[in-house]
Amino acid sequence: MSARDVFHEAVKQALIKDGWRNIEPMTLRYDLTKLEIDLAADRFFAAQKANTQIAVEVKSFGAPSVVYEFHQAIGQYVNYRMVLRRVQPERIPYLSLSVEVYERAFKSDFFRDSLEEHRVNLILVDALSQEIVTWMPKPE
Amino acid sequence: MSARDVFHEAVKQALIKDGWRNIEPMTLRYDLTKLEIDLAADRFFAAQKANTQIAVEVKSFGAPSVVYEFHQAIGQYVNYRMVLRRVQPERIPYLSLSVEVYERAFKSDFFRDSLEEHRVNLILVDALSQEIVTWMPKPE
Repeated sequence: MSARDVFHEAVKQALIKDGWRNIEPMTLRYDLTKLEIDLAADRFFAAQKANTQIAVEVKSFGAPSVVYEFHQAIGQYVNYRMVLRRVQPERIPYLSLSVEVYERAFKSDFFRDSLEEHRVNLILVDALSQEIVTWMPKPE
Repeated sequence: MSARDVFHEAVKQALIKDGWRNIEPMTLRYDLTKLEIDLAADRFFAAQKANTQIAVEVKSFGAPSVVYEFHQAIGQYVNYRMVLRRVQPERIPYLSLSVEVYERAFKSDFFRDSLEEHRVNLILVDALSQEIVTWMPKPE
């Protein structure tokens, strides 16, 4: 498996362990355009007595240029968010990356400031233990 | 020259014909990150008695997936806009593409709605005549 696929599988397993179900790739249609999002998932939260739905774009940041892949991730995220708002407004968009990439490669203010400015929801995953480390923010 | 370079040259020539000067690639530094923007340019507008500065990201949309390249373009644009606002707030960001791509490949509402939602300034260029067809909006 490629590094991308290995991390993709880690995110899937981490979501399963966290109680999420129906984890599958997702296709959105918007006018003439078809958009493929890495993972859809849903989970029942007893406190809210409601089903929560998320759409997760997974980024391994294995490309030679972290900055280049980051531009791509931000573009996909804001475009998916726009489309979700119009076709599935109840589904919350997330970007998932490994906590190791976030701590090692995203040291520059550029990344943190862009994630904040563009209001990107994050799921940080430990790629080795295949567990979710942090939700920003929690999807309950 | 690659299709990308041919179109890049067309945008440069179109800007020269339109009275822009000092047309050069541009490097922005933001904390630890270096960002390369395709073209910076400036022009004196007599009516305003002022020098107007722009930063132009050029996209040929020659990749196999227009949607993929579009995500990349949107991500670069919003990131460059954020950085410009903080380090060169007087410089106006633009995305440049050929009028032919805009009319042929961007027929789906997805593209037009995303450009509007993300408030992207556009320069549409005729790649053959190397002339600017439309500014949206004009940078005066």
